[in-house]
Amino acid sequence: MAELNLGKGLTAGKVASNVQKKLTRAQEKVLQKLGKADETKDAAFEEWVINFNKQYAEGSKLQRDLRAYLEAVRAMHESSKNLQACLGDMYEAEWYGKNEVDSILEDCDVLWTDYHQKLVDHALISMDTYLGQFPDIKARIAKRDRKLVDYDSARHSYAATHKTKKKDGGIKITKPSTLLERATPGWAQGILSAHNLAQTSLSKSQAEEELERAQKVFEEINLDLQEELPSLWNSRVGFYVSTFQSLAGFEEKFHKEISRLDQDLHDVLETLENTETT
Amino acid sequence: MAELNLGKGLTAGKVASNVQKKLTRAQEKVLQKLGKADETKDAAFEEWVINFNKQYAEGSKLQRDLRAYLEAVRAMHESSKNLQACLGDMYEAEWYGKNEVDSILEDCDVLWTDYHQKLVDHALISMDTYLGQFPDIKARIAKRDRKLVDYDSARHSYAATHKTKKKDGGIKITKPSTLLERATPGWAQGILSAHNLAQTSLSKSQAEEELERAQKVFEEINLDLQEELPSLWNSRVGFYVSTFQSLAGFEEKFHKEISRLDQDLHDVLETLENTETT
Repeated sequence: MAELNLGKGLTAGKVASNVQKKLTRAQEKVLQKLGKADETKDAAFEEWVINFNKQYAEGSKLQRDLRAYLEAVRAMHESSKNLQACLGDMYEAEWYGKNEVDSILEDCDVLWTDYHQKLVDHALISMDTYLGQFPDIKARIAKRDRKLVDYDSARHSYAATHKTKKKDGGIKITKPSTLLERATPGWAQGILSAHNLAQTSLSKSQAEEELERAQKVFEEINLDLQEELPSLWNSRVGFYVSTFQSLAGFEEKFHKEISRLDQDLHDVLETLENTETT
Repeated sequence: MAELNLGKGLTAGKVASNVQKKLTRAQEKVLQKLGKADETKDAAFEEWVINFNKQYAEGSKLQRDLRAYLEAVRAMHESSKNLQACLGDMYEAEWYGKNEVDSILEDCDVLWTDYHQKLVDHALISMDTYLGQFPDIKARIAKRDRKLVDYDSARHSYAATHKTKKKDGGIKITKPSTLLERATPGWAQGILSAHNLAQTSLSKSQAEEELERAQKVFEEINLDLQEELPSLWNSRVGFYVSTFQSLAGFEEKFHKEISRLDQDLHDVLETLENTETT
């Protein structure tokens, strides 16, 4: 029989399975918060996550400040151009050095445009590439958190079936799930009951199977992140160095050349003054 | 008998005299526009006034653009400081060259502040002083225009009394002042009639006296302006030169020093990168 399609590739079965997953996780979190179930902790990993968040925040701030700086460069280029245009307009055709002055003003304009473009092409684009890695890793850290809850939940299910089997060989609900039941909205009560029934009817081997699966899924994503987070964290030094080195490099070149043009302008004006007063 | 004081040192007599002056000028201008009276023209002076207006407009534009440039310098200083603060914050205490980096960032901040201050203290203040001369001269050009109308009016009054005396020895209104009378508002009709009566009753010697006085007043202000306008016009070259020379000079110094700091920062970061990768 064909399943009811709910659009976007969702089927009624998938929806039910997602709802069940969410409920199992919520139940597990409630039990952990109440101290009724132990929670797997990894202090070293948590430290990496703190570093990741710090690195992401620093990078985002740098990107914002770089964008604002680029905006300021554009504004200063504009106002510098306007100011120099005053000189160009006032400078009469028959004054000494009219052509030199016009060509200096033009070169200044080219230098500003070039400086802005270099910052965009190099610093801003490499900044965007660097920051582009973070959303995906952030999503995977959240996924790892969910898979860890699934693993803990499977662990507790397994322990429960194991203990119950030992005690009386029968099936018994051992988890105090009343709080969760009370918090569940009416429309989901049926699903929750079915879920509890499924939980209680897990056989020892089913629980073991589920635990192995949950552990495998968690460990896979955990191992990847354990490799990626330290490597991303260490990459920050090289990234900051290359970013600020290229910023400093472009700035240095720009300031050196503008300074040379200023010297040229100064000299032309000096000659004009001497010509006018003699 | 004490005169009625109308505040601000105005007395009823002064107000009446001012109203009369304005009416005489308006009458003279109407006659000149209608081609009923000749107008003293000075093409050379008019040329100086055109130059004066051009110079004033250019100077005002330069002042506006300089202020906008100063605003842009302040904004770029701010955003450059924010961007560099990112480096300062990211740069960990144990990384090579932490102190050098902090001190370079501080020096950059000082250079920007210093550059902005120098522009304000020199370029902007000398700009304000230069432009400060214009409003007074502009007011005196307007005064000269009024005194020229007074002179023309006195000239015509004198000619009229001279002609009338020659013709029949009697007093006669020779100016067609009906247009002016029609255009005068009701409240001023009385003053105008009194004025016309005063005009018509001028004796030949009174008219001569008035002409001499008007000529003297006009020539005094005219002579001053004939000296001042060309000298102000010629001063523009020196002013533009000194303004843009000092701008270029401060800019050159600023860019040279910032470029040196960028080089230093580049070197520290290079050493950090080599230290990190070995």
